[in-house]
Amino acid sequence: MATPRKRLDREQRRTQLLDIGIQLFADRSYEDVWIEEVAEIAGVSRGLMYHYFPTKRDFFAAIVERESKHLLDVTAPDASLPVHEQIAAGLDAYFEYVKTHSHGVRAINIGTLSAEAAIREIVEHELAEQQTRILDAWGFEGERRVLAAVAVRGWIAFVRAVCLDWLDHPAIPQEELRVICLRTLAGALGN
Amino acid sequence: MATPRKRLDREQRRTQLLDIGIQLFADRSYEDVWIEEVAEIAGVSRGLMYHYFPTKRDFFAAIVERESKHLLDVTAPDASLPVHEQIAAGLDAYFEYVKTHSHGVRAINIGTLSAEAAIREIVEHELAEQQTRILDAWGFEGERRVLAAVAVRGWIAFVRAVCLDWLDHPAIPQEELRVICLRTLAGALGN
Repeated sequence: MATPRKRLDREQRRTQLLDIGIQLFADRSYEDVWIEEVAEIAGVSRGLMYHYFPTKRDFFAAIVERESKHLLDVTAPDASLPVHEQIAAGLDAYFEYVKTHSHGVRAINIGTLSAEAAIREIVEHELAEQQTRILDAWGFEGERRVLAAVAVRGWIAFVRAVCLDWLDHPAIPQEELRVICLRTLAGALGN
Repeated sequence: MATPRKRLDREQRRTQLLDIGIQLFADRSYEDVWIEEVAEIAGVSRGLMYHYFPTKRDFFAAIVERESKHLLDVTAPDASLPVHEQIAAGLDAYFEYVKTHSHGVRAINIGTLSAEAAIREIVEHELAEQQTRILDAWGFEGERRVLAAVAVRGWIAFVRAVCLDWLDHPAIPQEELRVICLRTLAGALGN
């Protein structure tokens, strides 16, 4: 299903290719995606595709990187708010991302335990950043921070698992998920 | 580092090969494990290795399957206990498994998001079974079960993430982890 070639600048072309790729990776296993197909859908030559992304791994890494960065941007905390509101706002932004970027959520999820260390590291970086933000917002220090770090890391895994489940069960109201997630964090941190 | 060949019966030989494999998979990425090396360490011919496990995927699937089954066995609930004690006992059994089978924990973790659907399904089956056990023990039914199922699935992801973290930070006391996990479940379920 080739679409007519359009003149796009470098950045637009890259964005277009990543947009196509993320949809393919969301619906199939990593093995079943061929970047040649991405070129075909985009209506560009294979040579141009390889020019942007020499290998499938490079392509997938670029997708995971873009989505992780986007996720960090939209969930960036507003330090002027009280900590509970910062957390709730970050969670709402994450839910919003999940609702509007289901492909990105699945791609990041696949990236989490990719056999490729470089891809895992992209996701690890995002998780570590989210963890640090929460620990800093709460002001955990010293010994207390060690245990709180474990609890927060676990909670991030909780939120991700709940949201992946949500993609499969979209009838669950967002407000219910929000309550569950906030209550769970309070439990994890002993608040 | 070939060890002398020993006469083992079929089941013993299979167990030996899996035991060797799990150590290799725990320390390296999937790509960097060669089943020929497993044969060499076991002191058996490649032909015999292929006889037991035709491909690396079959071999890895057998490891994940054995460990998942073992984990389900050791965490099987005692329905005669009150629900809180069943959960706590299951959690203690899981911690015990993590402490004594770190290779198995890592192998299952790698299996969770393996590109191979068949391997993911082995782990999914274990997670679904743990989820069902907890929901049944608590007696959640109907509409309440739908939301509780999401919370419990998230909690299982929490416990797994916390335990993976624990492997990297073994100084954290088990009792602290236990408290965090139980408090988190109470939060997730709104108890």
